[in-house]
Amino acid sequence: MTRSIIEQEVLDRVLPTDAERSAAQEMGNKLIAAVYEVAGVPAMMTGSVARGTWVRGDKDIDIFMLFPPEISREELQEKGLAAAYAVVEKFSGTAEEKYAEHPYLNAVIEGFDVDLVPCYHVSSTAEMQCAVDRTPFHTRYLLPKIGNLREDVLLLKQFAKGGGVYGSDHMTGGFSGYLCELLVLAYGGFSEFMQAASEFRYGEVVDIEKYYADTKIVRGKFSEPLIVIDPTDKDRNVAAALTPTRFAEFMELARDYCASPSPQYFVADPPTQMGMNEFAATLQKRGTAMLAVRMKTPPYVADTVVPQLRKTMESMKAMLVAEDFQIHRAEVSMGAENSLILFELLIARLPEIVVRSGPPVWNHENADRFVEKYLMQEQFAGPWIEEDRYYTEVLRKYTTAESLLSDKSKILSGSLGKHVRQVMEEDGYEVLAGVDVWSLEFSFFLSAFFARSSHAIRKLREIRGGQE
Amino acid sequence: MTRSIIEQEVLDRVLPTDAERSAAQEMGNKLIAAVYEVAGVPAMMTGSVARGTWVRGDKDIDIFMLFPPEISREELQEKGLAAAYAVVEKFSGTAEEKYAEHPYLNAVIEGFDVDLVPCYHVSSTAEMQCAVDRTPFHTRYLLPKIGNLREDVLLLKQFAKGGGVYGSDHMTGGFSGYLCELLVLAYGGFSEFMQAASEFRYGEVVDIEKYYADTKIVRGKFSEPLIVIDPTDKDRNVAAALTPTRFAEFMELARDYCASPSPQYFVADPPTQMGMNEFAATLQKRGTAMLAVRMKTPPYVADTVVPQLRKTMESMKAMLVAEDFQIHRAEVSMGAENSLILFELLIARLPEIVVRSGPPVWNHENADRFVEKYLMQEQFAGPWIEEDRYYTEVLRKYTTAESLLSDKSKILSGSLGKHVRQVMEEDGYEVLAGVDVWSLEFSFFLSAFFARSSHAIRKLREIRGGQE
Repeated sequence: MTRSIIEQEVLDRVLPTDAERSAAQEMGNKLIAAVYEVAGVPAMMTGSVARGTWVRGDKDIDIFMLFPPEISREELQEKGLAAAYAVVEKFSGTAEEKYAEHPYLNAVIEGFDVDLVPCYHVSSTAEMQCAVDRTPFHTRYLLPKIGNLREDVLLLKQFAKGGGVYGSDHMTGGFSGYLCELLVLAYGGFSEFMQAASEFRYGEVVDIEKYYADTKIVRGKFSEPLIVIDPTDKDRNVAAALTPTRFAEFMELARDYCASPSPQYFVADPPTQMGMNEFAATLQKRGTAMLAVRMKTPPYVADTVVPQLRKTMESMKAMLVAEDFQIHRAEVSMGAENSLILFELLIARLPEIVVRSGPPVWNHENADRFVEKYLMQEQFAGPWIEEDRYYTEVLRKYTTAESLLSDKSKILSGSLGKHVRQVMEEDGYEVLAGVDVWSLEFSFFLSAFFARSSHAIRKLREIRGGQE
Repeated sequence: MTRSIIEQEVLDRVLPTDAERSAAQEMGNKLIAAVYEVAGVPAMMTGSVARGTWVRGDKDIDIFMLFPPEISREELQEKGLAAAYAVVEKFSGTAEEKYAEHPYLNAVIEGFDVDLVPCYHVSSTAEMQCAVDRTPFHTRYLLPKIGNLREDVLLLKQFAKGGGVYGSDHMTGGFSGYLCELLVLAYGGFSEFMQAASEFRYGEVVDIEKYYADTKIVRGKFSEPLIVIDPTDKDRNVAAALTPTRFAEFMELARDYCASPSPQYFVADPPTQMGMNEFAATLQKRGTAMLAVRMKTPPYVADTVVPQLRKTMESMKAMLVAEDFQIHRAEVSMGAENSLILFELLIARLPEIVVRSGPPVWNHENADRFVEKYLMQEQFAGPWIEEDRYYTEVLRKYTTAESLLSDKSKILSGSLGKHVRQVMEEDGYEVLAGVDVWSLEFSFFLSAFFARSSHAIRKLREIRGGQE
């Protein structure tokens, strides 16, 4: 398929330059040699740099250090980290430990963002001892196949970046680089894939190596909206981290692009930031009640913390709803220092009265206890019988959503994320209301919250806006 | 069983006097003779007066005029009403037509409240042509059996009156006189029945004539909480009009009475009335928002109108809840002039913003239409995709519950009671808010609404209050 002018112009912008290419390759080779020098084990470059499928300007180099499978996990971690530190020192870089299944080093070396990851040197995925052992196989699989499709991969990656659906971290829940490469490979090109994607349905199956006899079997095994069987491991869905929302957004982006292509689909929206005055004016206009719970960010990666923040938010939402506070919208944000759980409520203050449901009349013992407790109350009505149960009116425990969120023992009784709970227990948390919800740290997040639109819509709006 | 002092004192109060007895009997005989005279058909006294089971001071005489089964329904109605009017004229009484399955006359004659009801003179319930044909059989069945149990029946009736659960009309949903008689007959006395009732469960079966082999069959046929097979018609549950609430209330009254008897259980609460100032103070204390819909009362009996008011209330409740207005409590009242549907809301005003749910993204045509419609909106956020569906924020249609209830075409689009709808369509309706909800006509109803307590509880409270 010939490239459109739009796509050719995108490629002119995102194809790595020759200088970039050789610099990255050279850096990779030096790192591999250094690993051998300090640890006596082979290493390989993985990821997009290794496969020549990176977007111009990306400076990510992934080096996997291949340790013999005989050593223990402890030894692997210990030797791996030691080797990584030695490599970083050798190049006078700076490093930070990160935690996935086991610790690895994220370093800045000569301007490159380098991950130094220890793994086992196994001869097939069947012998894998941990998840990272799989990564080298991805490069081994793709390298001989992706040569002619590099430009197509770059177009898809840039399209996904432009549409805000690139990245398989939990914050994004979008398309990983490996997934983009497999999809281009499966459909034979960028345009071919885009046409197919614009007609996708939930439960779409892509099985390049035809491991399964039919799609029914695959759908019985995997439940995600997009199922791309890993050619290096038939029991794994490469698109497992893709959320239903991102999947649907991508389909709409693809549909819009196919119907009316524009270079703007390949341009990522710059994030916008909201000042305190603008925040206050927005609250005024919306007429809702804003509340937020702010806590220190637990010292773990986003893939660990963000799902925990979501779980915590769901628990708080359920408590608010159970106490009659109706939620308009809610969202979480993980910042470097603090994390925020944001609630936008229809109403944050309720009358003092509430109906309390008592035991069924058939339960004589509890019925008597309930009646005894509320029999002589003067304040409100009740007790009364309705159908087969006692009820009474009592004073509402939480007349404001703020007082509920501030009740630490109540909040901590919920089903919270482990590390989030730990931080809330040990360091406490703040409940912010109204304009106090705003802070510089969350000014981007709050702006995105109020502007909430799918990327597909934002693209359309930019394009329409540009036409008018 | 010997009578307790409490029960004996009640009987001293409620047993009809000899003078009452002979006056009622005499009046009945005169009416029967008059029916024969004006219409040439036999008649019989039914109901409690005929069976000697009425409470002192009751002045209700039911006369059933027995027309030959050969005549048509039209003829029965025509001749029946003509005969009734002739009888009333003969005694210089006053009369009002009422409507059950067919019209009958409710008259005041020499101080008695007389119902003159035409029915077919059939020889068994199998030959019944309309529901009222059954009534004479009740008297024929009970008369020979109830003789020794008259005092017990009176005690039960007075107990039910005291507890607010006497009367099978739709407003009360309680125990009819016939039901009280059958229950006393089935259990062999007042005390015996009270003991049994205090241990009742949902789906209790009383089958005096043992028409059914076991209670399972009965429960398969009837679903009401209390099932009393009519000895004159095995396909009828005499307790069909008893609501679950009244059933449960009676059980609790019986249980309380058996545990600690008091004469107060046999004394009906005088209804209390609430003045406008008290109403305003109550609203203030409760902090809720009161709204009411007031319309003319349709010209039908309570058994027709009250269920229609309830149906209308349910329709309005569903609309309010669908528009995010949370209801604390709601109730209806049928007055002589006007009827009222009362809503007590947690909040009656909401912010202008609301999330509108759009089509699934898979429905390309509707998705495009939705996006097109909301794409360039400035006011709020959206559209966005969540899971597989489009959403957007829009202006709320009803920011106050009052504006929703005032939207006549919206309200009339609901599932309303037939005659209530007719009145609302033709004569309109008013929406009242806050202190304007109060009017003299509903001052008793509003008092009961706010004092809401089961009769069982009120009795207990009176008794406790008296002890303190």
